[in-house]
Amino acid sequence: MAADIAEQPAGFARLLEGDHFAAIAAVAAKVAERNPRHVVFVGRGTSDHAALYGAYLTEIRLGLPVASASPSAITLYGARPDFTGTLVIGVSQSGGSPDLTEVLRVARENGGLTLAVTNNPESSLVHAAELSVDVAAGHERAVAATKTYTAELLALLLLIEGIRAGDGALGTEERAALEKLPQLAEDVLTDRGADELAQRYRFASRLVTTGRGYAYPTARETALKLMETSYLPALAFSGADLLHGPLAMTDPDVPVLAVVGSGPGGRAMSDVVNRLADRRADVVTIGATDVPGASGRLAVPAVDERYSPLLDILPLQKLALSLALARGEDPDAPRGLHKVTSTL
Amino acid sequence: MAADIAEQPAGFARLLEGDHFAAIAAVAAKVAERNPRHVVFVGRGTSDHAALYGAYLTEIRLGLPVASASPSAITLYGARPDFTGTLVIGVSQSGGSPDLTEVLRVARENGGLTLAVTNNPESSLVHAAELSVDVAAGHERAVAATKTYTAELLALLLLIEGIRAGDGALGTEERAALEKLPQLAEDVLTDRGADELAQRYRFASRLVTTGRGYAYPTARETALKLMETSYLPALAFSGADLLHGPLAMTDPDVPVLAVVGSGPGGRAMSDVVNRLADRRADVVTIGATDVPGASGRLAVPAVDERYSPLLDILPLQKLALSLALARGEDPDAPRGLHKVTSTL
Repeated sequence: MAADIAEQPAGFARLLEGDHFAAIAAVAAKVAERNPRHVVFVGRGTSDHAALYGAYLTEIRLGLPVASASPSAITLYGARPDFTGTLVIGVSQSGGSPDLTEVLRVARENGGLTLAVTNNPESSLVHAAELSVDVAAGHERAVAATKTYTAELLALLLLIEGIRAGDGALGTEERAALEKLPQLAEDVLTDRGADELAQRYRFASRLVTTGRGYAYPTARETALKLMETSYLPALAFSGADLLHGPLAMTDPDVPVLAVVGSGPGGRAMSDVVNRLADRRADVVTIGATDVPGASGRLAVPAVDERYSPLLDILPLQKLALSLALARGEDPDAPRGLHKVTSTL
Repeated sequence: MAADIAEQPAGFARLLEGDHFAAIAAVAAKVAERNPRHVVFVGRGTSDHAALYGAYLTEIRLGLPVASASPSAITLYGARPDFTGTLVIGVSQSGGSPDLTEVLRVARENGGLTLAVTNNPESSLVHAAELSVDVAAGHERAVAATKTYTAELLALLLLIEGIRAGDGALGTEERAALEKLPQLAEDVLTDRGADELAQRYRFASRLVTTGRGYAYPTARETALKLMETSYLPALAFSGADLLHGPLAMTDPDVPVLAVVGSGPGGRAMSDVVNRLADRRADVVTIGATDVPGASGRLAVPAVDERYSPLLDILPLQKLALSLALARGEDPDAPRGLHKVTSTL
């Protein structure tokens, strides 16, 4: 898991290179030509969190309504929705989930434009889909996905910005911002803050993660990583939902990890952090600047919130790894999990 | 909270009566006439779980793709998607959430057909929407929503079956099945199983809830109720997602509540219960028949899975109430919560 985490800056650089970038741009151009009116994302586990990031990008950058289809409606209850004019994107690290493959097969049969985003160009998901994007993260050794997650994020970002541009190409400003990401990721991974924070949570019995907008997928993925590697019950909430009920559950015994970006989502989170501080919750933020009421911060660089999910998750992956080790667990062999999960 | 819970059978009967039923049928007929090609649901907290039920119904019964829009994309990031041909349904007990009102306002301005489903016909959500449905649950005293939740479920069921029929009317078979619900709900509420189960969880430090298909909203709502009233960290997973990572977290110390219906969703859950039993998790099911590997069951009648969410949640609401009392908490005054939550 440590090796997978460390490879992420190189993974970013690889996807931004000539061949991989050109392949994604070509897919983006084909999608733009078909001019979809709606986008549906399907994914499971970590890939569902990447899909959620794709959903925010689609709504905000493409101005298209997004759906997150329930595979069970199709695979268990036999629903056959009309997918005309709809782009259906299946996100899966292995490309081997039978339920997602079935959703793409049905969507294609029913008029949808289907696209597989995977780390395995030979997978059943790729064969079922009309178009595919290879996230090119290389073989992932650990069961807990890390480098395939951020590769999915970057591939979705390049794809959606390419669709926005129409021909898959990116503006020079966008391109320049993206090319800084590998070095920024390297810098974030060098920081030791996450390892120190792991000591603080050594005896925590549960944890809450929260974020809004682009930061919400990060909150969800952080909770999953902590559960997979440290068996720590971690509850993820959008900052808005947290104020609707789960807030009752936070008290000084519950550590909160709040992702606070440098933009509208981050500004909306400041009220949430204040409310949590009122309840004397122990809030640690992930962001570029200190937030009043928080007891600590994992430092990440200030970038456009659109790029933040690619960097914010890095110290949190390190936290999950360090915490598992601090608690005497083996993060490379989580109990009861397999790399490919088969559900219908 | 106990009084609100007890009123649910009467609430069902009221919604099925002449005036309320006719009002929903008239709205359904108007929606059918406009022939939407997609449906978007927005909701927060408990109402988001009702919206999720509406999403399954829409996909399975209407065969239309469903979206669960991210309000923050619109309210924080200024997204203005094209909502032409899209039915946008806002679900809110109070109808007073400013972010949902803003989403409906923007959707209406951008070509969407907007519909408010609330317990308050004078609310801002109703004023923002073109159409509205009153769930007529009466004043809810407790902060933790119970009777407004099941009223939202039934209103969405009547609405969507009415859209399917085209003119809002229901077939005689459907009508007969629905008219049994008030008595079935009364029978379920008479059962003492949930009160006994509360004793078993008196010292639990966390809990997992799970379900698939139509039962997934029930798993989500159960987790929220347990968090709101008993401050018990409860994690809800679809049966499919649970096998993807969170399974590592379940062990003999973690009680699992698994909603196992009488249909495709329930059958798919049997594999999940088996896998949990392999890990010696303590699984209690909610359903009509015993499941091998489970240590107990909260009994509910065998009905079409489409109706199950209206009944399955009842013993689970009672469990949340009883458990709060057993743990010395006041379920009528949850810490740090208000009835209307304002987020933008």
